[in-house]
Amino acid sequence: MSEFTTQELLDHVKSRQISPGNERVRAITARIVGDLFHTIDDFDVKPDEFWAAAKWLSQLGEAGMVGLITAGLGFDRLLDIREDEADLAASRALGTPRAIEGPLYIAGAPLYQREVRLDEGNEGKGETFVMEGRVLGLDGQPVPDALVDVWHCNELGRYSHFDPSQPEYNLRRRIETDAEGNYRFRSFLPPGYAIPPDSPVSELFALLGRHGNRPAHIHFMVSAAGKRALTTQINIPGDTFIDDDFAFATRGGLIVSLDKVDDVSAYASLGVTAPFTRAKFDFVLQDAQAAAEEVPGGRYTKAA
Amino acid sequence: MSEFTTQELLDHVKSRQISPGNERVRAITARIVGDLFHTIDDFDVKPDEFWAAAKWLSQLGEAGMVGLITAGLGFDRLLDIREDEADLAASRALGTPRAIEGPLYIAGAPLYQREVRLDEGNEGKGETFVMEGRVLGLDGQPVPDALVDVWHCNELGRYSHFDPSQPEYNLRRRIETDAEGNYRFRSFLPPGYAIPPDSPVSELFALLGRHGNRPAHIHFMVSAAGKRALTTQINIPGDTFIDDDFAFATRGGLIVSLDKVDDVSAYASLGVTAPFTRAKFDFVLQDAQAAAEEVPGGRYTKAA
Repeated sequence: MSEFTTQELLDHVKSRQISPGNERVRAITARIVGDLFHTIDDFDVKPDEFWAAAKWLSQLGEAGMVGLITAGLGFDRLLDIREDEADLAASRALGTPRAIEGPLYIAGAPLYQREVRLDEGNEGKGETFVMEGRVLGLDGQPVPDALVDVWHCNELGRYSHFDPSQPEYNLRRRIETDAEGNYRFRSFLPPGYAIPPDSPVSELFALLGRHGNRPAHIHFMVSAAGKRALTTQINIPGDTFIDDDFAFATRGGLIVSLDKVDDVSAYASLGVTAPFTRAKFDFVLQDAQAAAEEVPGGRYTKAA
Repeated sequence: MSEFTTQELLDHVKSRQISPGNERVRAITARIVGDLFHTIDDFDVKPDEFWAAAKWLSQLGEAGMVGLITAGLGFDRLLDIREDEADLAASRALGTPRAIEGPLYIAGAPLYQREVRLDEGNEGKGETFVMEGRVLGLDGQPVPDALVDVWHCNELGRYSHFDPSQPEYNLRRRIETDAEGNYRFRSFLPPGYAIPPDSPVSELFALLGRHGNRPAHIHFMVSAAGKRALTTQINIPGDTFIDDDFAFATRGGLIVSLDKVDDVSAYASLGVTAPFTRAKFDFVLQDAQAAAEEVPGGRYTKAA
């Protein structure tokens, strides 16, 4: 090794090997490195620019924001589009549309039967809201003992665990459905989310001329024995950014309808004493074709 | 925004804009994101694989190893090849070949006139070695008051600052040349370097079937008023990995010759009392065409 051209260097990078390694990782790495070499050549990227990008990537990792930029650059939604396409190609019936998990899920939230107040400790933080419905199979039959793992941001758009000012598992709960597949929870209507200012993500977004807002939404992971775990979100209608989500995650089938409930008698166990806003929503799960499909969470949890 | 294909999503990612942003960052980001979308499609990358890669990237940033993987995947050498090509295209005479900086430079090492013992506090750690020579211009004239910033690893292949067991600036010094452009330093012949085990970099290298060894080398940044700063390395001849550097950085013009010096009388000021190994090497600097070219270090230091 001594003097070589860009192409010779690329060939060296791709072919250097002392053991078999992993063929797929080798092939994908070679593709990505080759594409980046060509991008550097085509755009005549200068060392200062390259190192500024490397520094940014390093800061992104340090800030724990890789999973936020993937959403902002469309990768999370891309994976959902591809999963949908794979289902269609396999003539597999679709259930409730999937939506991106986002980087802010925390496993192990407190578990309750049938119903729960999600807003414990957040009283008066927003408009009282109840969401209720059933978990169903593709055949329309209720799924008992399904797990509905639900999380949303606080009144400032921030998520517990990532925002140290909030108590552990604030606005995060798991609900097990009853024999008829029912779940319900009380909370408040959350606001939208915005990417953290003064962060590597906001820095890139400023350079891209983009905003970093998501419309108001609530996250779910729904799972049950024999069913394919579903990661999804519902959107609160009327949000300014509902058609302009920085994460490209809004889907028509996931914008709930809100109605006003005046007769609160059926909601006494949730502590409701005045008229409130309600959304009814049923989650429809696909059948699992493999045990791995029953496990919710496709991100850092599964990817060991 | 609701349902769309991969191509429609990509168009959204590229076109979303609320302010002008930076046109070049927008264009390069669009290219990189588009290439990655196509890679995901072409290789049918599954969510688990994508999130494993995202997790790896996050850990790479957390470990401060972005600048190590860029070297291992050839990017650092690519930048040098492109700088050489730019010089040739501009009919600019070349000086001493450039070589990659690597991620382990620390600015502000102790400064000495004409000569220094680099190995203070490292006595008996290896074969006594003196390197000496001059800093010259392209015209062969000596460059007085040039700064020779030199650093190398310890006897275990580790670098001070990054290895907390070493004193501050261990094996890092700056030497100012005298009126005749002379510099010299005493140290020991360093061993090669290997990527840290149990790190994100070693993890990828194992999957690529690659080793992570560099041949024995010594780093330099040489700078002077009116001259283009030079980042380079010299290689110790005879190393197993001299033609198989994981960072692809070895260059023929930078492998020094070693000779044995028996008459030590001229080296008393360096504390040499027995025959030792010597390398003579002159650094030839290009003329600076802009003030920015006089500033050494093209990496995190310059890239603000």
